Amino acid sequence: MRYATVRVAEGTRAARLHGAEWVLLEAPDVGALLRGASGEPTGDTVPAADADLAPVVPAPRKILCIGLNYARHVRETGREFPQYPTVFGKYADALIGPRDPIVLPPESDAVDWEAELAIVVGRTARRIDPADALDHIAGYTVLNDISMRDWQRRTTQWLQGKTFEASTPVGPLLVTPGELPEACRGLRISCEVDGVEVQRDVLGDFIFDIPAILAYLSAFVTLRPGDLIATGTPDGVGMGRSPQVYLRAGQRLTTTIEGIGALVNDVVAPPHSHPATDRPATP
Amino acid sequence: MRYATVRVAEGTRAARLHGAEWVLLEAPDVGALLRGASGEPTGDTVPAADADLAPVVPAPRKILCIGLNYARHVRETGREFPQYPTVFGKYADALIGPRDPIVLPPESDAVDWEAELAIVVGRTARRIDPADALDHIAGYTVLNDISMRDWQRRTTQWLQGKTFEASTPVGPLLVTPGELPEACRGLRISCEVDGVEVQRDVLGDFIFDIPAILAYLSAFVTLRPGDLIATGTPDGVGMGRSPQVYLRAGQRLTTTIEGIGALVNDVVAPPHSHPATDRPATP
Repeated sequence: MRYATVRVAEGTRAARLHGAEWVLLEAPDVGALLRGASGEPTGDTVPAADADLAPVVPAPRKILCIGLNYARHVRETGREFPQYPTVFGKYADALIGPRDPIVLPPESDAVDWEAELAIVVGRTARRIDPADALDHIAGYTVLNDISMRDWQRRTTQWLQGKTFEASTPVGPLLVTPGELPEACRGLRISCEVDGVEVQRDVLGDFIFDIPAILAYLSAFVTLRPGDLIATGTPDGVGMGRSPQVYLRAGQRLTTTIEGIGALVNDVVAPPHSHPATDRPATP
Repeated sequence: MRYATVRVAEGTRAARLHGAEWVLLEAPDVGALLRGASGEPTGDTVPAADADLAPVVPAPRKILCIGLNYARHVRETGREFPQYPTVFGKYADALIGPRDPIVLPPESDAVDWEAELAIVVGRTARRIDPADALDHIAGYTVLNDISMRDWQRRTTQWLQGKTFEASTPVGPLLVTPGELPEACRGLRISCEVDGVEVQRDVLGDFIFDIPAILAYLSAFVTLRPGDLIATGTPDGVGMGRSPQVYLRAGQRLTTTIEGIGALVNDVVAPPHSHPATDRPATP
């Protein structure tokens, strides 16, 4: 089955794909659905072609990202092969929908792409056994781990370059594991900038495979329904090129995983003025 | 004013201190109160001495931590003085209440302390001007950024050693800025293990001061009511000692900031068996 979070007049709704229509459900989003909100249809539908999709899980409690998980990408960064998974985070404020624009922040000159397969956790679990790890997965989706390289490299810790506001597209939908090869093995992943392929690989060649990732992460923290786990990116990022190449306003970034779908995000210039805070400062 | 999140039979309630009593409020916790839930009293009170306190904000959207922000602590880690704030994260699953036990995870042999002043954000804001940054603060609290040093140092990214499940005490309460010196300048911070002082400093000697931290973080992400910002730790952590010293079962960790309060956490051995997942795996 295929689920998405659809933007509607009153907010969002979880939805299940039925033919060419999204059947809207009572749960407000896919995260809430996974946490137990009602999956009953509301009676409304939206043609799939017209749907305005939110991040498939708009407010995950955790977004855990694995770095350096494809052998060729490790080589392009010039690092050594890892003994343990490199784990960094993002916060929900970073997420945008699968067709939303990526607004270049005026603070960064080095906005880069990282096409990734993302796992959506389906069960609350700690200390998962790799042997049954795949049973804890609600489904798979696509995530582009947009990275502000200048900020990422300001200090040893990458977070500030990884969780920029409204920068990380995720979606378009969650595909349940039964619709896909086990652990997505063999599916093509690609990233294109204005139709030119910049990343391409076949899923399954991870340094740390999906059961190993779930076991490793759940050794230190409880995984919960709706948590997102980004599994790392193949080689071909802009930072790894010579000369380095970063996103520019006017470009279109397309991130695709075969059998799941595509993120199509237009890159746009920053607004001239900065958004104000929500109320005036009281001096 | 002083606020806490009090555990009651049906869950938790935000509470306001009135003399020696917590006046329970309709909001379920201090985070919800800051996000606009009702601050009306329920009519119930709990004697302060008897109250079972939850993490003061149990489910912040973001927990942003500043590393290497006290000059002497930077020296003890052997690092250079930073040009930019080092920022790393935790997730809400890491938080425990101010009197909860710290259960040593069987996965780590190097559980260390880091006494910190934490800011509780009061307003939604992006790109805060340092000149009015203090107006965005709902209050201050105490946090011990418990760090599993073996996991923190497995890779370049510290997250996996910083966000261990149920390891980070925060509280006991939120003190509004009007009750404290501006930016808490001059307040004593200390950490004791079994009554022996292991960290001691006076707040205000930050490499990046509180207005600078709020401006820096909000350059890349919107700060929201209830978000926690840990401002870094003084020297005296166990990792910085020779030989290194880590927490052991049976010890009591006390983390105090003058004018705010103390976290008192007993360190306990791990349970013999691992917690099971919430439902049986379906083979």
